[in-house]
Amino acid sequence: MNTFQYTQIGVVHSCFTEKFGVPRQSGLVSEASGVVVLFPPFDDAEAFRGIEGFSHIWLFWHFHALRGHGAWQATVRPPRLGGNRRIGVFASRSPYRPNPVGLSAVRLTRVCKDAGGLSLHVGGLDLIDGTPILDIKPYLPYTDAIHATGGYASEAPSVRPVSFAATVEGRVEALQQNGYPGLKDLIVNILGLDPRPAYKQDKGEYGMRLYDLDVLWIVGDSEFIVTDIRLPTHLRSAGNLR
Amino acid sequence: MNTFQYTQIGVVHSCFTEKFGVPRQSGLVSEASGVVVLFPPFDDAEAFRGIEGFSHIWLFWHFHALRGHGAWQATVRPPRLGGNRRIGVFASRSPYRPNPVGLSAVRLTRVCKDAGGLSLHVGGLDLIDGTPILDIKPYLPYTDAIHATGGYASEAPSVRPVSFAATVEGRVEALQQNGYPGLKDLIVNILGLDPRPAYKQDKGEYGMRLYDLDVLWIVGDSEFIVTDIRLPTHLRSAGNLR
Repeated sequence: MNTFQYTQIGVVHSCFTEKFGVPRQSGLVSEASGVVVLFPPFDDAEAFRGIEGFSHIWLFWHFHALRGHGAWQATVRPPRLGGNRRIGVFASRSPYRPNPVGLSAVRLTRVCKDAGGLSLHVGGLDLIDGTPILDIKPYLPYTDAIHATGGYASEAPSVRPVSFAATVEGRVEALQQNGYPGLKDLIVNILGLDPRPAYKQDKGEYGMRLYDLDVLWIVGDSEFIVTDIRLPTHLRSAGNLR
Repeated sequence: MNTFQYTQIGVVHSCFTEKFGVPRQSGLVSEASGVVVLFPPFDDAEAFRGIEGFSHIWLFWHFHALRGHGAWQATVRPPRLGGNRRIGVFASRSPYRPNPVGLSAVRLTRVCKDAGGLSLHVGGLDLIDGTPILDIKPYLPYTDAIHATGGYASEAPSVRPVSFAATVEGRVEALQQNGYPGLKDLIVNILGLDPRPAYKQDKGEYGMRLYDLDVLWIVGDSEFIVTDIRLPTHLRSAGNLR
């Protein structure tokens, strides 16, 4: 059986510092931003000449944060089907597949070239911090944007309402002014997609890490309610936030 | 530098038996059809359960028919820019890239499961016969179909008119009745995209191989004219075509 060896060309730095909460596809949370940092020799500005003209790019990446050894099975239970119905792994976007290569279409917001190398700022990200990048291609609408029908997943997932406890409102606003721009929309849109695993839909308290913040929320009757946002040490000691 | 090893899961059998003439992206020639044949253990029907519900699928594949050793350079000269202007390799879909992984969105027309294994019949193909397949994913319109702007390649390539010499008309019709359904549209749509390399746009006679046929054409003032279609030996000797 033929095998092919690919080399990591860069890495993603993302607002998603842990797996829980990462949107299940790209483009679902517009505010989810990150930076693709290229490694030498792939950080050559010439290799990206003209990429600014594209509103979106494809990222090819390797699923590196899999449970176990990432062993695959013929069928999977996608969250979109409530985690009950089994479908074939090749009829799914599951990470647990024979070759764990991922595909994300992200918005290209800025290309940074400096002495330190080259990086691409992107939005609509669905990748965890540290994801290895294998290839970058321009998104070409005339061939990539297809009027297709999408089986069990033809529509975008539904969105849940999200609110903030009165005690947290002020902190969110302060954080937005102190290094976390757009934090509120980011939280609303991530939680709105219901990041809970399909097999664990019970009430109770949940937490996810976003940048260096711990975001806690509870499941209300029809909405999610953010109950706390815990600050990292350097912000707590700075005293301008509490 | 991290490397990742992927295993070939199948192979494409395509109407394109040589590189010249292969459309430069998927979906441009709807009639360009082929079959993805899965290798064991990936030919398990369970691994494709539910894929029939999707009108289109993504093929991930390895560029295996490259000149030299497929060495990449920072810039390339895409045919869409007339072969003159240089752009960065990551702002292009050039095969000569650090990790030569390709991406094609193809129409899924049929899933064949039988004792001999599993195969997927597809249309809108841009792959040469023998292309190794690495992964198959469903096309999900809600995340993959993006209203994007496409830099130097925002529109589909323009299409040239194609005609058939009077001496060839009858043969095309006969071939369509004898194992080559849709041949005429296939030729018209492939040649209409002008498969000539950007650096070789002179007049004269050109030829391309399609299935086991040799298709010859000349460059007229404003159109391409198909002048001959040469038959394979088994059809010549069968005597029902000439």
